[in-house]
Amino acid sequence: MIKVVILGGGNVAYHLTNNLLDNKDVDVVQVYNRNIVDIQYLKNKTLFTDTLSDVKEADIYIIAVSDKAITEVSSKLKIKNKLVVHTSGSVAMDDLQSDRKGVLYLLQSFSKESKVDFSNIPICIEANHDNDLILLSTLAESISKSVYFIDSNQRKSLHLAAVVVNNFVNHLYTIGSDICDKNNIPFEILQPLILETAKKITKLHPLDAQTGPAKRNDNETIEKHIAMLTNNQQEIYKLLTKSIATTYDKKL
Amino acid sequence: MIKVVILGGGNVAYHLTNNLLDNKDVDVVQVYNRNIVDIQYLKNKTLFTDTLSDVKEADIYIIAVSDKAITEVSSKLKIKNKLVVHTSGSVAMDDLQSDRKGVLYLLQSFSKESKVDFSNIPICIEANHDNDLILLSTLAESISKSVYFIDSNQRKSLHLAAVVVNNFVNHLYTIGSDICDKNNIPFEILQPLILETAKKITKLHPLDAQTGPAKRNDNETIEKHIAMLTNNQQEIYKLLTKSIATTYDKKL
Repeated sequence: MIKVVILGGGNVAYHLTNNLLDNKDVDVVQVYNRNIVDIQYLKNKTLFTDTLSDVKEADIYIIAVSDKAITEVSSKLKIKNKLVVHTSGSVAMDDLQSDRKGVLYLLQSFSKESKVDFSNIPICIEANHDNDLILLSTLAESISKSVYFIDSNQRKSLHLAAVVVNNFVNHLYTIGSDICDKNNIPFEILQPLILETAKKITKLHPLDAQTGPAKRNDNETIEKHIAMLTNNQQEIYKLLTKSIATTYDKKL
Repeated sequence: MIKVVILGGGNVAYHLTNNLLDNKDVDVVQVYNRNIVDIQYLKNKTLFTDTLSDVKEADIYIIAVSDKAITEVSSKLKIKNKLVVHTSGSVAMDDLQSDRKGVLYLLQSFSKESKVDFSNIPICIEANHDNDLILLSTLAESISKSVYFIDSNQRKSLHLAAVVVNNFVNHLYTIGSDICDKNNIPFEILQPLILETAKKITKLHPLDAQTGPAKRNDNETIEKHIAMLTNNQQEIYKLLTKSIATTYDKKL
C-alpha cells in the first residue's frame, strides 16, 4: 500500500484524488489545499487541511498545484527523506525543493465537469533516484496501462506538442463552428469528420493521412476559400496552406 | 427500387459503389469510369463501361469524379429528363449540364484502404426540382441516418469548414508528431489526448472547451515554447496563440 498526500484543489488534483481514493493499492492519507472550501467534498472520505505544517507522513507527496506555485509549495513542505513529485507538463523536476524528487505527468486535458477514465491516460514519470523511479512506476501502473519514462527535457517538448494537437486543434474547431454559425449550418454535421480525422492517425502517420486543396495545390479552391473568411481567419488559412504545401513539396 | 448509374473510379466513387451494391433499396445498374482498369473489381457484381455513350437508363446518375471534370462529364452524358447529381463539396449545383440536377455530398474523408461506416456519414442534398429533392432524400436516407438539406452556398462554406477541422487539424497532428520524433518521444502518447479533444466538442461548444497557455495569457510558457520550434512552426504557433488570445479578450 503506497501512502500518498495530495496537495492542490484544481482540476488535476480533484480527478487524481477521486481516482486514488478508489485505488486499492493506494492510501490517500490526506489532501492539502490553501483554500479549504474547495476540498470540503472530502469530508468522510479522507483527512484534509489548509495548513502546510500539518501535513501527515506518507511515501509520496503529489504537488498538483498551478505551475507558478510548485516551487513555493515544495519549499514550504517540511518533509524529510520522502519523495516529492509534481504533475506539471512544463515545469522541470529540479524546480522542486526536495532531496528526493520526481514528476507524475498525466497527459490529458481535465475539466471538473466530465469524468475521466484514468486507465487509458498516458502517465509520464521521472525521478532523481532509481528507487524512487521504481516507487513512482508502481504508483503509475496502479493508475494506468500506459506509463512512460520521460525526462524533463522530453516532457517540455511533449507539453508543447500537446498544446499543438489539443489547444490549437480546438481553436480550429472554433473557427469551423464560426463558419457554420454564419451560414446557418448545424456544427454537428462536422462532428463525424472531426472524430474520423482524430481516429485516422492511430492507424496512419499524419503525414500519410493528409488530404485537401493545400496538399494537391488546388489554387482555385484555395482562392475561393480565402475570399469567404474574416481577416484573422484568412491569415490562419494562408499560413497553414503554405505550411502544408511546403511539407509535401519537400517530400516529393 | 431506385436505379442508379455511378460515374467515377476514385475514392468516393469506390466506397459509394460498394455501399450501394449492398443497399436493398438501390439497384446499381452500371458504373462508368474513363479508365476501365480501375473498375475491373466490379466484374460479376454489376455492369461497367469506359464509354459515356454506352451509359444505361437509370433514375439517378451520380457523378463522383474530380471537381474539374464534373461539368465536362455532365455535358457529355446524353441523358434526357433524368436526375444528374454530383458529390462535390465545392462545386455549385448549377455547374451540372442537365435540366434536372442535384447534389449528394458525403461529408467524410475517404481513403481506399479503410472501410467506412456510411450509416453515420452526414449527407448534404440539394436539387433544383422539389420532386427530385424527395427522390434524392429517399436515396440519402437509405444510406445514412444523417441527411441535411444544404444549398450550394451553404455547401461551399461547409466544405471550407471541413478543410479547417480536417486538413488543417491533420497538419497540426503532423507538427505534433514532428516535435515528438525530434525528442525521441513515441507519438502514441498523444493519441488519447487527440481523441479526447475531438470527443469533447460533441458535448461542449469549442469556445467553452478551450484551454492552454494562449487562453490564460501565460507568456512565460509561450516564450519557452516558441524557442523550441522551427521557424515555420514558430509562425504557426504565434499566429494561433494571437488568434486564441484575441478570441477570449473579446469575450471577457
